[in-house]
Amino acid sequence: MSKLIDDTIANIKPLDKKAMAAAQARQDSLTKPQGSLGRLEELSIQLAGIQGTMMPRIKNKAIITMAGDHGVVAEKVGNWPQEVTAQMVQNFLVGGAGINVLSKQIGARVIVVDMGVAGDLQDAKLLSRKVAKGTQNIAVGPAMTIAQAEKAIETGIEIINAEISKGLDIVGTGDMGIGNTTPSASICAVFSGRSPAEVTGRGTGIDDEQLKHKIAVIERALAVNKPDPKKPLEVLAKVGGFEIGGLAGVMLGAAAQKVPVMVDGFISGAAAMVAVAMAPQVKDYLIAAHVSAERGHRLMLQHLGLKPLVDMEMRLGEGTGAALGIFLAEAACRILSEMATFGEAGVSEKE
Amino acid sequence: MSKLIDDTIANIKPLDKKAMAAAQARQDSLTKPQGSLGRLEELSIQLAGIQGTMMPRIKNKAIITMAGDHGVVAEKVGNWPQEVTAQMVQNFLVGGAGINVLSKQIGARVIVVDMGVAGDLQDAKLLSRKVAKGTQNIAVGPAMTIAQAEKAIETGIEIINAEISKGLDIVGTGDMGIGNTTPSASICAVFSGRSPAEVTGRGTGIDDEQLKHKIAVIERALAVNKPDPKKPLEVLAKVGGFEIGGLAGVMLGAAAQKVPVMVDGFISGAAAMVAVAMAPQVKDYLIAAHVSAERGHRLMLQHLGLKPLVDMEMRLGEGTGAALGIFLAEAACRILSEMATFGEAGVSEKE
Repeated sequence: MSKLIDDTIANIKPLDKKAMAAAQARQDSLTKPQGSLGRLEELSIQLAGIQGTMMPRIKNKAIITMAGDHGVVAEKVGNWPQEVTAQMVQNFLVGGAGINVLSKQIGARVIVVDMGVAGDLQDAKLLSRKVAKGTQNIAVGPAMTIAQAEKAIETGIEIINAEISKGLDIVGTGDMGIGNTTPSASICAVFSGRSPAEVTGRGTGIDDEQLKHKIAVIERALAVNKPDPKKPLEVLAKVGGFEIGGLAGVMLGAAAQKVPVMVDGFISGAAAMVAVAMAPQVKDYLIAAHVSAERGHRLMLQHLGLKPLVDMEMRLGEGTGAALGIFLAEAACRILSEMATFGEAGVSEKE
Repeated sequence: MSKLIDDTIANIKPLDKKAMAAAQARQDSLTKPQGSLGRLEELSIQLAGIQGTMMPRIKNKAIITMAGDHGVVAEKVGNWPQEVTAQMVQNFLVGGAGINVLSKQIGARVIVVDMGVAGDLQDAKLLSRKVAKGTQNIAVGPAMTIAQAEKAIETGIEIINAEISKGLDIVGTGDMGIGNTTPSASICAVFSGRSPAEVTGRGTGIDDEQLKHKIAVIERALAVNKPDPKKPLEVLAKVGGFEIGGLAGVMLGAAAQKVPVMVDGFISGAAAMVAVAMAPQVKDYLIAAHVSAERGHRLMLQHLGLKPLVDMEMRLGEGTGAALGIFLAEAACRILSEMATFGEAGVSEKE
């Protein structure tokens, strides 16, 4: 593998246990029954371990939304025309999409990346890092070359590194790509060992007949490509996507620099599977924002060992679930650092 | 019943179906697959119906946290000294509690009300509306008189009316009261018809032996008082609490003026049961922020017909769950009003 990827993985260290113990002790001294803020308390401890401080902070926030197109749309796996990928990227750039609205609410900047959109896109606010104009059709051969898979991951690492250098306390992942639940379900099947029927969902809303067809396409993709779960870069190349590789790179790069990653839904989850397969220690840096309505996501999270923060029955992608999760991460940190202790407030403790 | 209560209930009207239909049509025109924002979309439609507009707004926010003491602490139903109620009220007033931190994050004002704290409390920022210095012990007789129960509800109505006159788009409910899971479980048992064993939880953290004792105390309270679920004011008087009555009043008053109510956890849920028993139409104005870790809350919500937004395993009260819910309500409204439509963004629709 490339030096950048190797070096990044080598830099991913275990969480800071001392900071976590200090954070836990502080949580237990705050004016509330111990544990009564449930998941917010747990989350604050994980964030302390990631950032390496008793009082982690979520102030500088970014959502990185990566877009790519997928050759497998030739198999008619969904109902939306491929041009929508590029159109939605334009929508992100003018601020009209769901992720723009939620990012504005939580005070996060949105980084829009063209990782491999089929159409031409030009905009000063767009990071143009096209690996190629869409992947090849996975139902007949590999999505991309190994060199392209490496390039996608390296690009993700470079982009997160640049964002961290500007100041970043947490990153949320997001995706856009017509057809991308198909490679994501394929990746999930490979790493989880489950059948395509178990992990394939309706994406943007296909009917029963179309779902059967989509499962058959994924079965073909796996039969044709024979991806080996022990070779994650090969899995990405054979049945993945450019935005999925880019997001895996974002996760590796963030973890290497002790920045927590708020993982969005099914496509981000597929990227997490690739990243964790490449570097199991990255898992401690990941937070599952939500469980998506997309079939297979719950199983994917179980396989990753991640417990989602919320279930809002969402399935939009873009990073919209991650935005909600970042709000909760900020709440967790604020509780830990801003609440008074029993001593400070003069409140009696449990008898 | 008093004229204020009667008039308030008479003013609670059905939701605005026209506004809801318009909001649904707008949701379906926004640049995302229809329904892909799940619960956020549902919530936006309910808020449209409550506020009576296609584009509801959550800008002016308040959490009303009501405090009261409970005579049943004489039965040793918990581990915390009664003085903690007054101490925590002081903590609210100086901004050191969980609810202060989360309210600050979401931009909500916190209204702290002394509905019946046992100790003396004086502070310019405190609304002193003490009905009495704590309730009587429900294990041996009624918590309060019918007149006091009315007074508690009226106080809640007066307080929400005053807040609405200052400008208010949503109200969150919150509570503080050592021992108040005991009256809340009693109220839940009365209205749901379930046994105390089914609806009684560990409150701030009691052990198995103490839980058995707490259940026995509630069984005694029900046997001694014989509250009739068809007479909600009597239920409140017999086994309730002053903060519970106050919160029921807040809910009735908010609904009468088309202000959505973000209902916190188990104690707020008990107040909702009283309010809904008095005026079933209030239910449409209630949003369950979360399901609490307190045993009985899930069943309580089922009985109310409310589906919680999130499950963060929280059980602090104060309105902390409501604060998270208000963030989500704001997100729902922002999505509905700020996202671009397919037409505006020039994005192709589903084929």
